[in-house]
Amino acid sequence: MTILVALSTSERRTRIMDFAVEEAKLRSEKLIVVHSLYGGDKTTREEIEEGETLLKWAEEKAKSSGVEVETHLLVRGKDPGEDILEFISEIKPSLVVVGVKRRSPAGKLIFGSVPQKIILNSEVPVVSIK
Amino acid sequence: MTILVALSTSERRTRIMDFAVEEAKLRSEKLIVVHSLYGGDKTTREEIEEGETLLKWAEEKAKSSGVEVETHLLVRGKDPGEDILEFISEIKPSLVVVGVKRRSPAGKLIFGSVPQKIILNSEVPVVSIK
Repeated sequence: MTILVALSTSERRTRIMDFAVEEAKLRSEKLIVVHSLYGGDKTTREEIEEGETLLKWAEEKAKSSGVEVETHLLVRGKDPGEDILEFISEIKPSLVVVGVKRRSPAGKLIFGSVPQKIILNSEVPVVSIK
Repeated sequence: MTILVALSTSERRTRIMDFAVEEAKLRSEKLIVVHSLYGGDKTTREEIEEGETLLKWAEEKAKSSGVEVETHLLVRGKDPGEDILEFISEIKPSLVVVGVKRRSPAGKLIFGSVPQKIILNSEVPVVSIK
């Protein structure tokens, strides 16, 4: 079995990865870290590069703790929440880890629509990290 | 450390307790199961008895799996979500487990306001079970 981490570029990424790495060790499971983007016209070149940098960082963090890890930039063309739910159905992880708050463009903390969709629709338990 | 389970009388209670018991075994931690009620005029005698029956059931379920367990009927007089958040601040569990959907009086599945409040405000990771 695996633990799926839906990672975004929020300031919570370190807390999210720290929790996921510990849980992977406890369960002796592999981590699969995804960063989901709209793709096409809705996604800029910068967002793709930012996503790749984020996943590289996550991969190194897991590996340095001795945890097996795989990363995916998920660009499937639906919306990021739908794409992650579809991916959950495919790989059937034992647990999903998400960050629940992010800053809006105005700097306000909000409940992200992607984690909300994942929490409400995932077939497996979802851990929210604030 | 402990794992806090916020249990309601929904049909998901078995899934919630099964996950919590497994996680308690993995982490060698104790379970604290709470059922939170408004109290006073907002709570009927039946709801209190139903809560006590629910907690008794949860206690036996944990004990039969060899997991140390403690239960609390939480009636503090604020709202159930606030009361659970206050309790989280006091006992500082390593993890909180909640069910995220329940049936409205009309039988429709809805995202409960109590889990939403806990997910958004808890200082520790919250696992949502659908």
